[in-house]
Order: sequence, then structure tokens, then C-alpha cells
Amino acid sequence: MIYFDHNATSPLLPLARQAWLEAAEQFIGNPSSPHRLGSRADAALTAAREQLAGILDCDSPDIVWTSGATESNNMALHHWAASRESAEEVWISAIEHPSVLEPAKSYFPKQLRLIPASRSGTVDLNWVRDRLRRKRPACVAVMAANNETGVLQPWPELLALCREEDIPFFCDATQWIGKLPAKGLGQCDFVSGSAHKFGGPRGVGFLKCPAQGRVQPLLFGGQQEEGRRAGTENVAGVLSMMAALEAREAALRRGEIEMRLRWRRQFERLLGEALPGSVVVGAGQERLWNTVSALMPEADGRQRWVVKLDKLGLAVSTGSACASGREEPSHVLAAMGYAPSEASRALRFSGGWETTEEEWTALSAGLVKVHRGMQPARV
Amino acid sequence: MIYFDHNATSPLLPLARQAWLEAAEQFIGNPSSPHRLGSRADAALTAAREQLAGILDCDSPDIVWTSGATESNNMALHHWAASRESAEEVWISAIEHPSVLEPAKSYFPKQLRLIPASRSGTVDLNWVRDRLRRKRPACVAVMAANNETGVLQPWPELLALCREEDIPFFCDATQWIGKLPAKGLGQCDFVSGSAHKFGGPRGVGFLKCPAQGRVQPLLFGGQQEEGRRAGTENVAGVLSMMAALEAREAALRRGEIEMRLRWRRQFERLLGEALPGSVVVGAGQERLWNTVSALMPEADGRQRWVVKLDKLGLAVSTGSACASGREEPSHVLAAMGYAPSEASRALRFSGGWETTEEEWTALSAGLVKVHRGMQPARV
Repeated sequence: MIYFDHNATSPLLPLARQAWLEAAEQFIGNPSSPHRLGSRADAALTAAREQLAGILDCDSPDIVWTSGATESNNMALHHWAASRESAEEVWISAIEHPSVLEPAKSYFPKQLRLIPASRSGTVDLNWVRDRLRRKRPACVAVMAANNETGVLQPWPELLALCREEDIPFFCDATQWIGKLPAKGLGQCDFVSGSAHKFGGPRGVGFLKCPAQGRVQPLLFGGQQEEGRRAGTENVAGVLSMMAALEAREAALRRGEIEMRLRWRRQFERLLGEALPGSVVVGAGQERLWNTVSALMPEADGRQRWVVKLDKLGLAVSTGSACASGREEPSHVLAAMGYAPSEASRALRFSGGWETTEEEWTALSAGLVKVHRGMQPARV
Repeated sequence: MIYFDHNATSPLLPLARQAWLEAAEQFIGNPSSPHRLGSRADAALTAAREQLAGILDCDSPDIVWTSGATESNNMALHHWAASRESAEEVWISAIEHPSVLEPAKSYFPKQLRLIPASRSGTVDLNWVRDRLRRKRPACVAVMAANNETGVLQPWPELLALCREEDIPFFCDATQWIGKLPAKGLGQCDFVSGSAHKFGGPRGVGFLKCPAQGRVQPLLFGGQQEEGRRAGTENVAGVLSMMAALEAREAALRRGEIEMRLRWRRQFERLLGEALPGSVVVGAGQERLWNTVSALMPEADGRQRWVVKLDKLGLAVSTGSACASGREEPSHVLAAMGYAPSEASRALRFSGGWETTEEEWTALSAGLVKVHRGMQPARV
């Protein structure tokens, strides 16, 4: 199978697997245990914390290890729910991942305001600027890069706006981290990330959150993570995640995305030429080098597309894996102003660091083949 | 190091490591993804669910995969907090793990009633029987085996009492599962377990909870686990956990605990003979074959004991790893009626399936050596 669903999950990098195996062998103790095997595990975790803080540009006590971005996102919103004044609004972008939007809807049924997005897929900075003149929200949450469209969001500008007003800013950077340099994200008050989106193992992630001041735990029951997250720490998972992230950051330093951006653009060009009526979502915007969300020419056919591509050995998705299987059209495309009839034509292609130019070419060839098969026979 | 802290965490079993590696290789898709790689991962997860349901004796849709027992325990209590009538009491044993007690205190500041425990370490069945005549609690939670003392709790009797009154019963079986047969635990309404306590990887566990009726999620944001727990499933973690559990259940079927019970008893006898004034906690009770909680003869010396044993290459703990490092005496021993001066003498020795008779002998020899070193020199 040629795999174009990396935004859903990315295979484990060999060096992350190696790091996991070594850690499982070397750090057998519980980091909270009072003996040497415990201290060793704790020291490894502390070193990993410093490593991640260095990459994000924050202080190491700001890092809380979690079971993944879903937990991190829920933890940030749970904290806000517990700490904000009840009448204050909470501003969250309309194109956030469900693991931000759903807890937000649950925790703030009345005070939630959705920051709108443009047709091109970015959140509306002016909406935030305008409303800030009249209102002070308890917090603002906007993701770094959208998981469905790959469109980069103006998080540095939003962070600056929030800083001016001393409003906590939360950035779900799950799709950014490991694909673009993480440097600077640590300046946000809250940042979440997940190992399996960049070649680490599943079931591990982190939340960067204020070390100073009390962050309300979502999981109670132990003094781990400075009382912010109970539960035995997943040392092997954390070390494996850090090995993967270091490898991705090194690739970024070597400028290895330039060529991948070219492959993506070439694919988009071929798509436009070969499939008249297809539309790349957020075409004019800065997007992740790995992601293409495209509307296919045929109406209501995206499930058929997925199945037919699957038969050709191409794994693609219809959008967020968390929402796949559900029949509703994407809330992201809806927020961008796409009609349900348009959104129902959307496919998502997301490559990875290991995806080759040949695989992008094979994907476009596969799309052409499926498209041809869908045309009524010529008389 | 000779490792006697398995109740804190157990090293990864080689066959669980192998299962993890194979799953990470074979099931690279996100189980929610619409293509073949997604379906394959989903099928593997479904098979694991059926396997665990078979072991616990429940229906497979009752199983929710989590990041470990701390999350499972928090999820159960969070569900009760969201679903009970506000005036109803919640009965929870005074010797529960902090990951049950702490969320309970947080969620039920006024309605929490602690079920007392006896000096020998079992919860008081009569307290429950008596109070049931007058009150109907929203739910009852009692663990299967205590993590500090190893004392087995009368969960089958409590389950029966709760069944009669149609009261949901929650059993934290984290220390039982993988050490004693899990069969029958699935009859409890809620059951939690954690992979790394029996040779699986850290960061994965489960909650058995009612599939019928709405269980309130703790983590929102995706339709995974029938909407009960959002987040990309940790397929490799789950499959590795199940490989470890199958191995432990097979060892149990082969009767492999008999000899280990003998080793533990032999160790306890030696301890009593060699260290006059030492006391095995819950001595007369049925206890896990791997666990000994003992009061050392010397007052206030348990940290010194841990350090001195560590120097001899013996890793032991002062109690629950989640509470280690804190100076307060164990809440478990306090609930059992031990004075702080007694509790401050407690050490916990917890072996594993791989612990040998020679290692138990080395532990008693080490204790004798440390004890001698602590005696004032004879004139």
C-alpha cells in the first residue's frame, strides 16, 4: 500500500522504535519509586523534558507528558473550565480538531464563541481584533496547522494579540510539530502535540502549560508531573517520541521540506490538469508540505473514491480520521463556507517524510485511473 | 539489581515486546481511517477486545481502551459524577489507590463515604451491609487487591450485595489482573486494569464499563470506543498488553502461583525469625502471592532501609509509587488503624512472575545485613 494518510497516523520511525526498545530495557523502574531504578527512569524523563523545552523554546517544568493530543486538548479546556470566571467568553476557532471543539462545547455551552474562518482556510484575525476592542475572553484557542486542509494558521499574530491583552492562548500544534520547526510554539501559554503524527509511538504526547500557577489536573491521583497529571509515566513512549521529533527537527534544519513542497505542488498541478472540476482547498494559502485537501469532480462520490483508490493500493482518507465513518460533511469545510454538496466531494491526501516523489506520481496516476472509470462510457 | 517493586511497575515481558513490535509493523493505519490499513487496525483492536472480554467474562463492547488504570479510574468516577443524583452518597473504600480516592474527593466533596477497613487490611463488609439497610448509594467502589499490602478484598461479596440492590459496583482490579485469574471480574459494572502491572507496556489499560446506556466520556473529541473515549487507539499497546495478559493467564492455569506463594511465605518466616519486631501487614489474610508489606523494627527508618537495600542491589519501596516521595504515612495503613509511628516503619516488597526463589532469599539476606548494620555496636 502507498500510504497517504499520515495526518491520521504516521508509521513508527525505525529510530523511534529503537529508542522505545532501549528505554523499555534500560528504564524498568517507576520514575516515582525511591530506589536507583526509579531515579534513573526519572532522570531520563527529566532529560527528555529539557530536550522538548529546548525545541519548543519554553521552560522544562512547563511540559506535562500525556497520552496524546486528545488528552492534552481536553486537559487545557478542562483547566479553563475550572479556572475562568463563569460569564467570560471562550474564543475557539471554528476549524479546530474535534478534540478541542467537543470539550469546548461540553464545558462552555453558553460562552463559546467560534472564531470564523475564510474560504481559503485561515481563521479570521480581524474578527479577533475587532471583538477584542469590546470583549475580553477568558482564553483563545487556535490550532497551528489544520489537520484536514493543511492550511497554516496565524498563530504568531494571535499569540501577539493575546499577549497584549494578557489573555491565555492555546495552540493545538499536533499537525505542525514534526512537520515544521517547533521553535517559538513554546511561547504560547498552552501547546499540545502527539508523537504518532511524526513517527513516534501512539499513546503519548504532551501539553505545554504554565508551570507557575495551578493547572487543574484532568487525571487525579498522584503527584506525577508536578501534580498536573497522575499516572505512571510512559518513559519508553516519551523517549521514543523525542527520538522521532529530534529526527524531524534535524530534517527541517537540513532544509528537507523544499523538495517535498515541490512534489506536493507538482501533484496539485497534475490533479488540476487531469481532473477538470477538481479543486484544491486553500490553494492560495501557505499549507503543510504534506497535505492536500481536494474536491473531486464527481458529486457524493468520496467513499467510492476511497474504495477504488484502496483497490489500486492507495490509502487516502475523506478528512479527519476522528470524523471518518460519520456521514456529516466536514465542519472545517463548512466553516470555510463550502456547501455540503461541495464538502461531500473532499478527499484528503497526506504524505509523510518517507513519502517519495514516485508515490505522489503514483497517487495522481491512480486518481486519473479512478476518474476515468467513473466516466459514463462514450458512445 | 534485584527488583522487588513490581506493584509500582513490572518490566516488559519479551513476548509483549515482540507483540508490540509486530503490531507497530503490521497495523500502521488509524483504526478510524476508511481504507484497508485502517480496517486492518480496527479488526486487530476488535479481536483484542473479544479476547479481553473472554478473559474477564463480559461482552466485548463493554471494553474501553485507555492510557492506563489512572485514566480508567478517573473515567469511572467522572462518569458517576456526571450521572448520579446530587444528594446520593458515594461509597468508596478507605484503602483505594489515590487514582480512585483523589477524583472521588474532588467530584464528591460532600457525598463521599469511606468504607472502613480492618486492622488486617480488608474492607468492612458489615459496614456496607448495615448501611445498605438505611441508605442507597449512587455507587460503590472497592478494589480487588490492595497495592500496598496485597490483601485480597471481598469484591465478589460486594458485587453480590450491590447486585441485590441494583447499585453499580466498580472494582479497580489493577493489582489483581495478571496475578490472579481475571475470570468473573467482568461481572462488575466497572473494572479497571493496567498493562504495565503484568508485563505489558506503560501507557495502556482498559475500563470495563456498561456498553448499554451512556457512559460519560472523560476525553471528548472523537467517536472512538463507541463515543466513550476519544483519541487515536494505541493498537500496538493494546496488542502487547493482551499478549502479556494471555501469558499470565496461562501461567495461572498451569498452577504456577503455588510455588511462588511458598517462596513468599518462606520469606515472611525468615523475616520474622531474623528481624524480631518486624511485622507482616495483613499476615493472616489471603494476599497476592507477590506482595509483602512489613513494618521494620527500627522507627522512622524506612527511607534509610530503602537506600541501604539499594546499595546492596535490592530495589524495594516504601509503599505506593504514586505516594512515594511524599512524607505522609500511607493512607492505607492509617485506614487499617496503624499509628503514624508504625506506618513510618513500612516497606513494600513486591516480586513478579520472573522473580526466583533465590531472589526472595537474597532479599531476606539483604534485610538481615541492613538490620545488623543499624544496631548499636555491642560493648
